[in-house]
Parts: sequence; structure tokens; C-alpha cells
Amino acid sequence: VDTLAIAGVGLIGGSFALAVRRAGFQGRIIGVSSPKTIEAALARGAIDAGLPLEEAAVAADVVYLAQPIQQILRTLDSIGGCVKPGALVTDAGSTKRAICTRAGKSIHKARFVGGHPLAGKESRGVEHADAALFEGRPYVLTSREPWLEEWIAKTGARLVFLSPAKHDRLVALASHLPQMLSTALGSALADEPDAASVAGPGAMDMTRLAMSSYQIWQDILATNAEPIEAALDVVIGKLEELRASLRSPEMEKEFERASKAARALREI
Amino acid sequence: VDTLAIAGVGLIGGSFALAVRRAGFQGRIIGVSSPKTIEAALARGAIDAGLPLEEAAVAADVVYLAQPIQQILRTLDSIGGCVKPGALVTDAGSTKRAICTRAGKSIHKARFVGGHPLAGKESRGVEHADAALFEGRPYVLTSREPWLEEWIAKTGARLVFLSPAKHDRLVALASHLPQMLSTALGSALADEPDAASVAGPGAMDMTRLAMSSYQIWQDILATNAEPIEAALDVVIGKLEELRASLRSPEMEKEFERASKAARALREI
Repeated sequence: VDTLAIAGVGLIGGSFALAVRRAGFQGRIIGVSSPKTIEAALARGAIDAGLPLEEAAVAADVVYLAQPIQQILRTLDSIGGCVKPGALVTDAGSTKRAICTRAGKSIHKARFVGGHPLAGKESRGVEHADAALFEGRPYVLTSREPWLEEWIAKTGARLVFLSPAKHDRLVALASHLPQMLSTALGSALADEPDAASVAGPGAMDMTRLAMSSYQIWQDILATNAEPIEAALDVVIGKLEELRASLRSPEMEKEFERASKAARALREI
Repeated sequence: VDTLAIAGVGLIGGSFALAVRRAGFQGRIIGVSSPKTIEAALARGAIDAGLPLEEAAVAADVVYLAQPIQQILRTLDSIGGCVKPGALVTDAGSTKRAICTRAGKSIHKARFVGGHPLAGKESRGVEHADAALFEGRPYVLTSREPWLEEWIAKTGARLVFLSPAKHDRLVALASHLPQMLSTALGSALADEPDAASVAGPGAMDMTRLAMSSYQIWQDILATNAEPIEAALDVVIGKLEELRASLRSPEMEKEFERASKAARALREI
């Protein structure tokens, strides 16, 4: 791999560039973004040059799409006709079925492997890019791919292989459902402003996600609605069971079960 | 006030003792707890002596009940006949209607003022007591009381005055509902162990409360069931609205509303 093109040089795209560079990648890294972002990415040392999308796709051995989901879908259509034969195209989008389906329709001359690094931070943009962003975090791939596996492992991420459907079902539970619960709690607290006067650390933890940007979530919700609906149905059922068990010994079992699952998340 | 008796010298009772001592309280502090806890509280410098409950109640100008809720209810019955006329009895229980109602029936010779410091940490017991535990945290009182107001202010806590009913309604939303949401999420994740492989920081935040001790929550749920049921009804309604709005522009308004409430919690 001589040339890596990164479309969308924001927090994730910029961090991937810095991470592979730090891990010893010797090839050229081309960025595709707005002129302002290209300037910031060059200043940050994340990329060697900026190019328009089609020119970058023609030149690249690996194309890494780190844009918002809807933009990734449009990019797949745009580059389908101009990628190098045998090149590798991958992405870092938060849902996988819509992207992998579109790639199957648009990308023929190159190989496509869907990806999702479960990493991030509250500050966005290449200014906050960090070569260590992926360390210890899961990085999902939708199929095996030696070059990607090698460099993702070198970023310090933990590789997880999942089909697009299983990925979307699991992130609906582990990521999209927490967001919905936090937004619902924030909305309930908005109805009763006096509740803020007695808020403790639990309320703080549980409303942090409610401050997330809708701009990011819009695409996630639109491309993963059915698994999120199913996850919401599950949790609404759980809340109805808890409501019926407030004075019952069943509640102790639910606390133990939930506590065990919470501890299991922390043991990985 | 020459003698302060603290029944239940755990994290909260021990921290209150250390906090008033640090703030210049010159009187005697008597602890009422198991022999083992009294020994630890003496070693920690939180109390000057241990006494059985009735002897402590007879001697005290202020009785501070920092036991579990059900035990506070029993203690109120036990000390009603032996407190000093004109003494002050207060508590630090997490719900207020049951305790204030019981105090109204049992405490006649002394004044009773309900209290609830919204403070705590993951480690319990007098070994973890901390003179700074209340700093910057809300401390609810159910009525005005000059001695308490003065010393609570000296601990660095922020005084909030609420009726028992309003307190219980607000903590149902700001504290008990977050616990129920975290337990429900933990329970949903327990149904799908593979979800742990893609859990990110959001899932960690949202399941921390799920690891709470049922021993503490049993009393809270039993003495605040109606307000918690009402809070659960509100949030279940919110989740059903979100489920119906996943692809709709309504979702952006919900995100903005929830985000605003989450930020308001942090501005107090």
C-alpha cells in the first residue's frame, strides 16, 4: 500500500491517519475534505496532501471513508467508477447494513470491507485527532482483510468481526439504546426544572449522552431504525416489569442480573 | 448544642461528624452503631464515644439519624419516649414522606426536621468517611432550623428547602428514575451477552448505577413507590415517542430539549 486516501479528515479520519503514521506506515496519506479542514489536517501533520475525491480515489491503494453516514453513501456512488482495480475501500461509519449494501451496489472493481471503530471523544474535528484514540477500543470489521487487520491492530484497537446485521443489532443495544435512554431522561427532567436542585452524580452520568449532537445521531437513527425499535421495545418491557416489581422480591433478582451485565462490560 | 448523637456511623453519619468537627463544632459527638463500627469510627476520629441508642438519645441535644430508611423508622419509635425535651432530631434518609410521617407520630417532646444530603461515593462505611463529602452537594431540609442550617452550610453543602412530598417527587425523577433506567439497560444487555464486545463509553456511563447495592435501594423503592411509578410512566411515554420519531424531524427537538435539561443540571 503506497497511498492511503482518507475521505473526511475529522476526529476519526485524522486519528486513523496519525495512528497508522505513528505505527510506521511509510506511504503517502491523502486527505479529502473542505479546504479549511485540509489546511488544519496538514497543520496537524495528519496528511501529506489534499485532493478532490475522484483524484484521490484514482490514486489510492486504500480508501478510508470517515465521513457522516449519509455522505459515505454518496461517496461510495461517486468513487465506484474511478477506484483502482484491486484497491481496498473501507469505512468508519456507526451503522453497517446501509453502507455495506450500498458498497455492494457501487463498488465493483475494488474490495469493500465495512468498519466501525468504537472510539470518540466529546470534542470533534482534526484539531482533536489523537494517534491513541483507538487504543483498547473495539474496532468492528464486517469481514477479514489482512492489510486492515494488521494496521488496526497496530493502532492498539481490539478487532471484532461481525456481520453488518449483527453489528447493527448489537450497537442498537449497546450504543443507540443508551443514547435514547439518556435523551428520554433529559426530556423527563425538562418537564420538571425543579428536579435539577436535587440532582446527584447518578443524574449527571445518565444525562451526559443527552448532550450529544443530533447532527451525528440523525444518520444513525435513520439507517438503524428497526434494530433501535426492537431495542426500545425490550427496554420498555423491562421498565414495565420494574414498575410492577418495586415492592417485590423480584426486584433483587433484576438488580443482580443488571449488575452482573454491567460488570461484564468492564471485564472485556 | 453540647452533645451530638449520630445513629448509624457509616459513610454519611461519619462524614457529617468529621465535617462539623472540621468546621469547629466543640461539643461531644456520640456514635450509635455496632461495636465493630464504633471501634472503626473511634479510630477514624469521627466520634468521641459509643453508646447504646436510648442512652445516646437521653444525652443528646441533637440526634442525627444516618441509618438505612427502615431502621430510621424503627429508631424514631425507639427514641420518641426518651429524647430530651426541646432537643432536635434530624435524619439523612433518601426518602422523606415515610420518615417525616413516622416522626410526626413518634417524636413529641423534641423537634424533628427531615434531611437528605445528596452526597455519597461508591465505597461505603466509616472507613471512607470524608469531611469534604458534602461540599458543593445539595442538602435538602423539610423545614427551616437555625442550628442545622448553620452547620450544614459550614460543611460546604448547598441548602435546599422542600416539603417531604415535593422532595420525594423530585428525587423520583432525578435519582430513582436514573437508577431504574440503568438497571433496565443492564437487564437488556444481560439478554445479549455479545453486545459487550461493542460497548463504548456511553454504555459504561449508563450502566454504572446498575452496579448499585440492592440493600440501599430496597428501602428507597418501598418508601417511594408511587412517585417512582409516576416517573416511570413519564419516561416510558418519552421512549414510546422517541420510538415513533426515529426518522422524523421531531427527534431534533427532543434532542435539543433533553440537551438543554442536561446542561441545566450542570449549571447549578
